[in-house]
Amino acid sequence: MRRFLRHPVRLVPLGFLVAILFGTAALMLPLATIEEEKGAPFVTALFTATSAISVTGMAVTDTPHYWSGFGLALITVFTQLGGLGILTGAALVILTVSRQLGLRNRLLVQAESAEYGPGDIRRLLLRIAATVLACEAVMTVIIFGRLWLAYDYPPWHALWSATFHSVQAFNSGGFSLYSHGLLGFSRDPWILLPLTLGAIIGSLGFPALFEAARGWRRPIHWAVATKLTIWGTLVLLVAGSLILLIAEWTNPETIGRHGVAGKVMDAFSQLALGRTAGFEVVPTTAFREESYFVLIALMFIGGGSASTTGGIKVTTFFLLAFVIWAELRGEPDVTVGQRRVATSSQRQAITVALLSVAVVTLGTFTLILTVEPVAFYRSLFEVTSAFSTAGLSVGLAPSLPADGQLLLAALMYIGRVGPLTLGSAIALNTRRRLYRYPEEQPIVG
Amino acid sequence: MRRFLRHPVRLVPLGFLVAILFGTAALMLPLATIEEEKGAPFVTALFTATSAISVTGMAVTDTPHYWSGFGLALITVFTQLGGLGILTGAALVILTVSRQLGLRNRLLVQAESAEYGPGDIRRLLLRIAATVLACEAVMTVIIFGRLWLAYDYPPWHALWSATFHSVQAFNSGGFSLYSHGLLGFSRDPWILLPLTLGAIIGSLGFPALFEAARGWRRPIHWAVATKLTIWGTLVLLVAGSLILLIAEWTNPETIGRHGVAGKVMDAFSQLALGRTAGFEVVPTTAFREESYFVLIALMFIGGGSASTTGGIKVTTFFLLAFVIWAELRGEPDVTVGQRRVATSSQRQAITVALLSVAVVTLGTFTLILTVEPVAFYRSLFEVTSAFSTAGLSVGLAPSLPADGQLLLAALMYIGRVGPLTLGSAIALNTRRRLYRYPEEQPIVG
Ligand SMILES: [K+]
Ligand SMILES: [K+]
Repeated sequence: MRRFLRHPVRLVPLGFLVAILFGTAALMLPLATIEEEKGAPFVTALFTATSAISVTGMAVTDTPHYWSGFGLALITVFTQLGGLGILTGAALVILTVSRQLGLRNRLLVQAESAEYGPGDIRRLLLRIAATVLACEAVMTVIIFGRLWLAYDYPPWHALWSATFHSVQAFNSGGFSLYSHGLLGFSRDPWILLPLTLGAIIGSLGFPALFEAARGWRRPIHWAVATKLTIWGTLVLLVAGSLILLIAEWTNPETIGRHGVAGKVMDAFSQLALGRTAGFEVVPTTAFREESYFVLIALMFIGGGSASTTGGIKVTTFFLLAFVIWAELRGEPDVTVGQRRVATSSQRQAITVALLSVAVVTLGTFTLILTVEPVAFYRSLFEVTSAFSTAGLSVGLAPSLPADGQLLLAALMYIGRVGPLTLGSAIALNTRRRLYRYPEEQPIVG
Repeated sequence: MRRFLRHPVRLVPLGFLVAILFGTAALMLPLATIEEEKGAPFVTALFTATSAISVTGMAVTDTPHYWSGFGLALITVFTQLGGLGILTGAALVILTVSRQLGLRNRLLVQAESAEYGPGDIRRLLLRIAATVLACEAVMTVIIFGRLWLAYDYPPWHALWSATFHSVQAFNSGGFSLYSHGLLGFSRDPWILLPLTLGAIIGSLGFPALFEAARGWRRPIHWAVATKLTIWGTLVLLVAGSLILLIAEWTNPETIGRHGVAGKVMDAFSQLALGRTAGFEVVPTTAFREESYFVLIALMFIGGGSASTTGGIKVTTFFLLAFVIWAELRGEPDVTVGQRRVATSSQRQAITVALLSVAVVTLGTFTLILTVEPVAFYRSLFEVTSAFSTAGLSVGLAPSLPADGQLLLAALMYIGRVGPLTLGSAIALNTRRRLYRYPEEQPIVG
């Protein structure tokens, strides 16, 4: 067992599991709920703890009317710790594992080496924490002012709500203090823009964010991962918003009755807040089918690497696009902006994408075939949302029986830990092979 | 234009296009139909010609009651020419392209080099043709005898039916002389086994088939592609049949009323004849959902490389499984039975798989969103079946409007030519790059 645990890749899944169990126990305390005298039932507490710690934000309860102030504070802390834990954990694990697995990667060793030696982790962690808190503070202040001045909230309530939603949005959480999410703030740029921009920045992940912030004058010099993340996110946001806007333009139940500016505001913020954080800005159950599929695709892709978002990641998606393009062009190398992409990165991208497709496919069919016969797109939406830790819901989760909720919780866990990390933790071969077999090029396709 | 055409990879899509247009014209002749005095309408003729030449076998007409003897003969010839064309074309193209694209592959250069020099193509083609005709002859004789002796068919009718279905099964065709496919031969091993075994052998492709036949004593020495094809096909057949058997065991509309031997016979032959050839042995519209998904998965995977089947191919599927396994184990190389798999083959496999996923996804949603709002699984089944040229149908194709049938015809064409070949024909860069960029290992996942 000690030998099994020695490999750091195995500590991540176990760490999350332990955190979830503690969180479940805490949420089962009678103090955490408003009405349940004996505390929340096990499945509800487990689902909510997993959802908060994995920063998914999917809910099986009417959050503001089920959890007490203490319960909501726990959820906030779990989300923040989950978010920070992921950010710093990603930094640490990648640094540690990279030596053993031979992944010389850019996170610290290259991109950050100008400022940090590998022994200088504390400064990096502090900088991450400072950035998170600064962003959340700016978001909180703007939203607080708006809630206080325009919505006549009492100051303390306005501050609490502003803090809660800012933490959720920046950490790609997605819990809300309102039963209907952000529906009450439709078309209000003072509320939606801070949340949207915060969620987008939070979704980039610190390797890309720091390099883009430091080298914003010369994007041509960015690392491949940073280029793919920043430009890829931009492409996804613009294309996704446009499709959503066109699909919902005349839908009276979503944005059809708004003016042009309101349509654009709601479509953009729904897309940006839906794809990673999972907030509801317009009623998701009233979407047209095209919108469901756009959101499913974007949730599946997720955010930047080493960010609090799930999914296969923007880098993975666009790297695979470059791989396909190179293959179609008959190029021997996969090149992104004058850099050749290592075959090891390509292989990792393939594995992440295929394992994710397998998990989502299996999850969707398990839900339909063994738990509850629901429409395919609803099952696919909810499963993708749980796996990608986006947390946006078409309302299926709360109505599922216990085994269905446990399935979604398991998907959030797998999605958060990452199918590659989880699979490696189980299958990793710690012995080194001292020989190589002769090469062969089988025909495929 | 001449420069564009000079590259052989561009000749394949054009060749198929020309063949399909000739086939369409022939099927529009009044002589080819029983009742249409002016000949079949354009879309029907185009669909049927594409279906036959791409050896898909999906039908939009009640084949035996729509096409005349002449029309049926045309369909047989198209299927046989399409099948042979694919087999020999695959051999020739791979040989020619391999020099230019640098794919040293096993088909002729390595596996066959013991017997054939690259200039010795004629002998290989003759051997392929002889094998095809020999297998079809054996199948025809057994089925002819059975139809004549047990079903009291007149000898000429029995011979015609036996020939027609043998050609269809061996070439992964799938057209039938009976309105309800092979439903009338349920549980009859004398009909089903020759067709099933012929379809399986035909689905392997000649590179794998010839090497396995020559080196059957020492499977350990087979090439990687042969090992993946033979063992992979075996795994898919056994696992698929078992799932189908369990799912349908109690379904009175499919195999539920048969004895154990009958259940096994029907489940096995439905799976084996459905996944590549596309014959209906039990009523597909009565399947349970599990069965649909198994058949969709197996159709999508398809048969062996350089065979008459479509799909991503058995090699591609299992090669990707080995890639994932190596990544999870943290192995630097992807090894299959003591051979290292070239990264170029891995890249090709991932491109084929991802492009195929993209085509099927886009096709499914195009059908649902713009042509006809049908249940998701029916759309996915019909689109996968067309793209993988399996041709098994849940009955959607005949009821679709013209644009839906054209969509399916386009999918058969894309599936037959192959998304990789088609994409390469459009995107291929014929200039050589004389420099390599520095390498980078972006973080993904
Ligand atoms: K989320
Ligand atoms: K077929």
